[in-house]
Amino acid sequence: MTLDEGSPAEVPASFDDVYAVSTELVRAVETALDEGRPEEVRELLAPLRAADVADLIVVLSREDRLGLVGALGDDLDPETMVDLDGSVLAELLGAMSPQAVANAILELESDEAVHLLEDMDEDRREAVLGRVPPPDRAAVLEGLSFPEDSAGRLMQRELIAVPAYWTVGQVIDYCRDTDELPDEFYEIFVIDPRHRPIGQVALNRLMRTRRPVLMREIMAGEATTVPVDMDQEEVAFLFQQYRLASAPVVDDAGRLVGVITFDDAAAVLEEEAEEDLMRLSGVSSETDLLDSALRTTRSRSTWLLLNLATAILASAVIAMFDGTIEQIVALAILMPIVASMGGNAGTQTLTVAVRALATRELTAANALRIVGKEVVVGGLNGVVFAVLMGLVAGFWFSAPGIGVVIAAAMIVNMVVAGLAGTLIPLGLARAGIDPAVAATVFLTTITDVVGFFVFLGLAALFLL
Amino acid sequence: MTLDEGSPAEVPASFDDVYAVSTELVRAVETALDEGRPEEVRELLAPLRAADVADLIVVLSREDRLGLVGALGDDLDPETMVDLDGSVLAELLGAMSPQAVANAILELESDEAVHLLEDMDEDRREAVLGRVPPPDRAAVLEGLSFPEDSAGRLMQRELIAVPAYWTVGQVIDYCRDTDELPDEFYEIFVIDPRHRPIGQVALNRLMRTRRPVLMREIMAGEATTVPVDMDQEEVAFLFQQYRLASAPVVDDAGRLVGVITFDDAAAVLEEEAEEDLMRLSGVSSETDLLDSALRTTRSRSTWLLLNLATAILASAVIAMFDGTIEQIVALAILMPIVASMGGNAGTQTLTVAVRALATRELTAANALRIVGKEVVVGGLNGVVFAVLMGLVAGFWFSAPGIGVVIAAAMIVNMVVAGLAGTLIPLGLARAGIDPAVAATVFLTTITDVVGFFVFLGLAALFLL
Repeated sequence: MTLDEGSPAEVPASFDDVYAVSTELVRAVETALDEGRPEEVRELLAPLRAADVADLIVVLSREDRLGLVGALGDDLDPETMVDLDGSVLAELLGAMSPQAVANAILELESDEAVHLLEDMDEDRREAVLGRVPPPDRAAVLEGLSFPEDSAGRLMQRELIAVPAYWTVGQVIDYCRDTDELPDEFYEIFVIDPRHRPIGQVALNRLMRTRRPVLMREIMAGEATTVPVDMDQEEVAFLFQQYRLASAPVVDDAGRLVGVITFDDAAAVLEEEAEEDLMRLSGVSSETDLLDSALRTTRSRSTWLLLNLATAILASAVIAMFDGTIEQIVALAILMPIVASMGGNAGTQTLTVAVRALATRELTAANALRIVGKEVVVGGLNGVVFAVLMGLVAGFWFSAPGIGVVIAAAMIVNMVVAGLAGTLIPLGLARAGIDPAVAATVFLTTITDVVGFFVFLGLAALFLL
Repeated sequence: MTLDEGSPAEVPASFDDVYAVSTELVRAVETALDEGRPEEVRELLAPLRAADVADLIVVLSREDRLGLVGALGDDLDPETMVDLDGSVLAELLGAMSPQAVANAILELESDEAVHLLEDMDEDRREAVLGRVPPPDRAAVLEGLSFPEDSAGRLMQRELIAVPAYWTVGQVIDYCRDTDELPDEFYEIFVIDPRHRPIGQVALNRLMRTRRPVLMREIMAGEATTVPVDMDQEEVAFLFQQYRLASAPVVDDAGRLVGVITFDDAAAVLEEEAEEDLMRLSGVSSETDLLDSALRTTRSRSTWLLLNLATAILASAVIAMFDGTIEQIVALAILMPIVASMGGNAGTQTLTVAVRALATRELTAANALRIVGKEVVVGGLNGVVFAVLMGLVAGFWFSAPGIGVVIAAAMIVNMVVAGLAGTLIPLGLARAGIDPAVAATVFLTTITDVVGFFVFLGLAALFLL
C-alpha cells in the first residue's frame, strides 16, 4: 500500500448519482429476466447494496420478482429480505425452501430474523426453525413470544454489557478480543451483578477517555430505559424526543435483555406517520399498493361500505325535505356546497389534531384551549365564506333569501366542523382507540347531516 | 467510589414512567406561574431534559410560555430551543435579548444555531450575530447561505477527519488529546490531502481494531456521500434506505464540509410524512395547531377558497339538469351518494399513491402496472357497490330505473376515481410538483363533476 492509494469517488452531483435504482436499471433487469439471462441479472445487481436490491424487487412484477430470486439463488443477501414487508416478503419467502430461509436467519441479527418469521404461518415457521441450531432458534422464539409492535419484537439481543468497575482499557481490549460482537453498536451498557442496567457509555465518550478510567466514572446514569412490553410507537417517540442512538430494553425484573437502535426507531416513526395518513383516508393494509387487485379491493371495501352507509344517512336527511326541493330546485343545486365546505374545514382540523396527538403537541393539558381555538377558526372562516357564497347564491338565483339561508347554514356547519374535528380524535384517544381510525367517517357524517339539515331546514322555514 | 455504587433506576413499567411531561406537571407549572413563584417553576423543571422542557413549553398558553422563559432566565438550556419550531420558537426568541440569543448560539453546534436563526428577520439576526465571535459567526453565516431544506442547512460543521495513513492508535490518541471534538459522533471520516472523503470508519469498528492497523485498511469505501445542495427529503431517504448513522457532506469540489447525523434525518423523515398528510388535507402551516386563531384562519382559507370554487363548479353541473331534478326529486336525494363514493375511493388510491411516490415504491418503472391495478380495483368495488346501491335505490323509490341509473353512474365514477387517484399524483410528480399539493382538490373536482354529470345525465336520457 502506498500513500496516494484510496482515491475519492466521483463527486455526486445529485440524488441519482447516489441512489442506484434507476428506471433504466429496472428495464435492463426486466429484459434480462424475460430473455432468460440469469448471469446478466447477477451482473447488473452486483454493485447494488442490499436495500437497493429490495427496492428493485418491489417495483418488479410478481413473476419477475420470483425470477430474480431464482436468478440470484444463494447470492441473495438476507439483508435484502429484511428491507421487504407484507405481501412482497411473503411471496419471496414462499418461493424459498425452508433450508434457504434457515440459512438466511443464521446470518441475521435476532430482530431481523423475527421480522422474516413473524407473518409466516405456523407449520412453515416450524419447518424453518427446525433447521436452525438451538441457540439461534431460542433467540428467535423468544423474540416471537413478545406481542406484535412491542419493544421486545423490535430489539436485538446482541449487545455489549460490562460491569461498572471495568476500565476503559478493559472494555477496548474486550472488544478487540471478542468475535461475538453485534454488527453495529453505538453504546456500551454498564450493568450491576444482577444484569440490571445502571448506565451507558457512548462509543465517542469511550474513545476520548484514557484507558485507566473506570466505566462508572464516565457512564451516563439517566439512560432512557425501555420496558420489553412497551408499544413500538412509544419507543419511537422516546428515540425522537431524546435523539437516542440506542436504548437498553429491560424485562419485568429490570434485567437488560436487548437493545433497540435508531434505525429500528426511525422505521417505526415513519410507519406510524404513514399509518395516520392511511387510516384517515380509509386504507388499512400496509402494503396496499403492491397487493394483488383482488386483495386491495377487499381491504378497501370495508371503508367504502361504511361510507356508503353514512352517505345513505345523509340522503335520508335530504329526503325529509323532498317537498321543499320540489318547490325550489336551487336548493338541490346548492346543498352539496354547504356539506363540502363543512367536510373540508373539518378535515383540516381533524388532520392537524390527529398528528398533534401523535407528537404530543395536543394533550389533556391543552385540549380545551385547542378546541376553543378551532371553533373560533371555524367560525371566522365560516363568516368569510358565508358572505362570499351568500352573495354568489343570491345573484345566481336572483333570490336574496337563498343567499341568506346558505350563508347561515355555512357558518353553523363550519363551527360544527371545528368542534367535531377536535372532539372526535380527542374522544377516540381518551377511549384508547387510535384517533385516526374511522375519524374521517365520523366527521363527514356529522358535517353532511348538519349541512343538509340546517340548509334545507332553514329554507323550509323561511323560503316557502 | 465503592463497588456497590451505582444502583439501577426503578424498573420503568410503562411509557409514563419514562416520559416526564404529565398533565399533572403541566398543571403544577401553570399554577406556580400564575401565582408568581418562579423558584417553584425552576424546581419543577430541574429534573427535566431539554426536550421535555420544549414539550412543556408547547402545551402552555402563550402568556405562560413567556412567563416560563422569564422564570428560567439563564437556566433555560439552549438545547430546549433547538427542539422548538415555527411560531413557538419565534415567540421565545422574540422575548430574549440579542445577547441572550448570541450566548445560546455559542453553546450549540452549527446546525442547531442555524435552526434558531433561519426564520428570524434580517435586522434582528444581524443584531444577534454582531454579538457572536467571528469564527462561530462565520460558521452560522455559511450554514444560512445554503438553500432552505438543503443538506447544507442540515449538516453540522463539527466532525473528525483523518488521513488514511494514520493508525487506529493515532486516531484514539487524537480523540483523547483534543478538546474541540463534536458533542456526539459515530464515524471517523478518512480524507485525502485535498480534504476529499475517501472512506469512513464506524466507531465500533475502530474499537475492535488493534492500535497499529492503518485507517486505510479498515475504512468502508462505499460511503454514501451527500452533495451540500441535495434536498433534505432525498437526504432523509438515503439515511432510511442505507440505515446510516451519519453521512459526509461534500461541496462542489468534493471536499468534506460537514456531517449529517441520523437524528437530523429522522426529524426530516417524520416531517415529510407529516407534510404529505397535511397537504392532502389542505393544511399548509407546519405549526398550525399552535398558531394564533387568526393566523390559522388565514392559512387555511386558501384551501377552502379553492374548494369553494370547485364546489360551485360541481353545482353548475347539477344546475344543467334542474329540469330533470324538478321532475324526479329522488335524483337530488341520491346524487350526493354517487359523488361521495367516487371521492372516497379516489382518496384511498390517491393517498396510497402519494406515499408510494415518497418511498419510491411507485416509480416510472412500475407506474403503468399500478395505474392498471387501481382501475381494476375501482371497477371491482364499483360493481359491488353499484349492485348494492342499485337495489337500495330501486326499492327505496320503488323505481327500478333509478336503481339501474345509479348503479351505472357509480361504476363509471369509481373507475374514474382509480384512474384520477393514480394519474394526478404521477402527473404532478413528473411536472416536478409535490404530488400531495392540491391533489385532493383535483381529485374531488373530477369525482364530483363526473359523478353528478353521469348520474343526472343518464337519468335525463333514460328516465324522463
